[in-house]
Amino acid sequence: AQESTASYDAGNKGEYRHFMLKEIYDQPQAVRNALESRLADDHVLEQAFGTQASEIFAEVKHVQIVACGTSYHSAMVARYWLESLAGISCSVEIASEYRYRKPVVLPGSLLVTISQSGETADTLAALRMARHLGYLATLAICNVGASSLVRESDLAFMTRAGVEIGVASTKAFTTQLVGLAILVLSLGQHNNINPLLLAEMVGALKTLPDELEQTLTLAADIEKLAEEFADKHHTLFLGRGDQYPIAMEGALKLKEISYIHAEAYAAGELKHGPLALIDDDMPIVVIAPNNELLEKLKSNVEEVRARGGILYVFADKDAQFESDESMRVINLPHTHPWMAPVVYTLPLQLLSYYVAIIKGTDVDQPRNLAKSVTVE
Amino acid sequence: AQESTASYDAGNKGEYRHFMLKEIYDQPQAVRNALESRLADDHVLEQAFGTQASEIFAEVKHVQIVACGTSYHSAMVARYWLESLAGISCSVEIASEYRYRKPVVLPGSLLVTISQSGETADTLAALRMARHLGYLATLAICNVGASSLVRESDLAFMTRAGVEIGVASTKAFTTQLVGLAILVLSLGQHNNINPLLLAEMVGALKTLPDELEQTLTLAADIEKLAEEFADKHHTLFLGRGDQYPIAMEGALKLKEISYIHAEAYAAGELKHGPLALIDDDMPIVVIAPNNELLEKLKSNVEEVRARGGILYVFADKDAQFESDESMRVINLPHTHPWMAPVVYTLPLQLLSYYVAIIKGTDVDQPRNLAKSVTVE
Repeated sequence: AQESTASYDAGNKGEYRHFMLKEIYDQPQAVRNALESRLADDHVLEQAFGTQASEIFAEVKHVQIVACGTSYHSAMVARYWLESLAGISCSVEIASEYRYRKPVVLPGSLLVTISQSGETADTLAALRMARHLGYLATLAICNVGASSLVRESDLAFMTRAGVEIGVASTKAFTTQLVGLAILVLSLGQHNNINPLLLAEMVGALKTLPDELEQTLTLAADIEKLAEEFADKHHTLFLGRGDQYPIAMEGALKLKEISYIHAEAYAAGELKHGPLALIDDDMPIVVIAPNNELLEKLKSNVEEVRARGGILYVFADKDAQFESDESMRVINLPHTHPWMAPVVYTLPLQLLSYYVAIIKGTDVDQPRNLAKSVTVE
Repeated sequence: AQESTASYDAGNKGEYRHFMLKEIYDQPQAVRNALESRLADDHVLEQAFGTQASEIFAEVKHVQIVACGTSYHSAMVARYWLESLAGISCSVEIASEYRYRKPVVLPGSLLVTISQSGETADTLAALRMARHLGYLATLAICNVGASSLVRESDLAFMTRAGVEIGVASTKAFTTQLVGLAILVLSLGQHNNINPLLLAEMVGALKTLPDELEQTLTLAADIEKLAEEFADKHHTLFLGRGDQYPIAMEGALKLKEISYIHAEAYAAGELKHGPLALIDDDMPIVVIAPNNELLEKLKSNVEEVRARGGILYVFADKDAQFESDESMRVINLPHTHPWMAPVVYTLPLQLLSYYVAIIKGTDVDQPRNLAKSVTVE
């Protein structure tokens, strides 16, 4: 396993008020580290996963990902990527569910586990349980090279996020997404991915750190937005496609450190129940890098408006959506659609951070939570 | 497609105050109708799905289920059943997500769609989109025989729930579970299910209507519990395994008609974030037919207690859990574990109904919602 050689991050929060804020700002560099020596000009270097990676990846017909919490959200993003880009079917499951049922393992299945610490109790137990089920191989995506998860897996990708102190995971998540993106392209290289598409995706990965830096310049706007949010008790986060898991991650951050009951929905499910909750105490956050989702949401906007609810929309600046009395638009820099889940994560991290500051919670040590859930 | 011949249900609420309450009490008879002529002594009659069913089921290697809202929750239960009982892998997806991505279809895959009306826009669109993706066949689980979903599918199971007027689905859901149970056993019959296990499961289906009747006798206890609930603004529903989707369904009912922000979690995920939300305004509902889950939750109980939160536990009477100052236990009649998801649905329906009565909401026509979501 390749560990980070970066010295920028020795667990000191430096000029930052909280570790979480430092770790949010670490992300462009953490992503650079995660990409270092893993990309060629027009393809990815699958040795990043271990010396046996090439041999194993050639046999993969299906991928099962198992994880908890924030890592589960990165797994969900990977599912969209794997099926559409690599043409390989993928299932994703919460580790505490997977380990206690009798799963059917498809032929040629790769088991992928994801955990920042590599010691998450349920994820590790799922890996150990699955060893006897006939998987082709096991692969860990992890931030700690000496962890049990890495030691007990056939292959591993080290995320090199550096030490993460804040209980609410930030840079561990975005570097997991980078690792999963490289895994998707590695598997695509063995499954006839179009070379032009592959080169385009490698290019999108290379520009990602700069896009993350640009996105962080929105902090002041988001700090202002947080003032409207801090007195709310509820909110719904909506996303579609590979932004649905990002909506889940945004809602989890707000729960963890701001103690606001934020829940995520796939945007198309709004009419199947949660719309009944909308009132002036229940704003809606929409993660919408593309136009299609916003067009579809416009009829919902009218319903939300009629109940006094406000929409907070994070959208591509090219989508040209304008704020009005019932909709606040935060424009993000234009990004390759493939990397949008990584980019759109940052403003949601910042939103939860600034709301927590206003509410005066213990940002780095939220109540009731531990950094690594090493017991069931 | 076999329609219901039942005359008990012509859309008249009779002695009941609301259609929803009538439909909750319809469930034992609705389930009897759904089972009628579909079970033999020791196996299920797969002709219930159509004349081609036997030929198609013999080829099924994987099942993909697509649905929205409440129907999505029945699909999630079926996934646990299919893998553990029939030994067939299963994926489940929200229709509005499935239709807009590029899914990989595994060889020998059966596409199953579920919808009460058979006109749910996203589910129907998913079926039409999937026609070109190489599925072995399509199968609809539906309450309306003349619907588009049934007409456009190769196979169909009619749930025979009778007319459902209440916007919040009740008997349509439990009869969908019955249809899915019969599907699971039908596929098991082609995949070497143990004949003793099969006969046991058929027996569990046959005793289900009586168990549902017994469960409805808890209504007065649940009405009393509702008084404690009605002033809460938030709640978490926890379940594990095939009760995790039932927790989701219970939370959705409470959202739909009581406007309480109820969110479901797989119990093992509690420590990965939502525990930060717990305070005396945030009770926890636990669906726990078995001892194992309650044992695992006991450490959480201590944390919840320390924050002033109360647990409401729906448990098998044989589990012998006792109410105390921080835990209210509702004991359910002993049921076969396989049918527990159906049985435990009923007290959660009743809870949301009685909370809605106390809050004075429009139970049968909750704000912002339509019975069938026939537009996107």
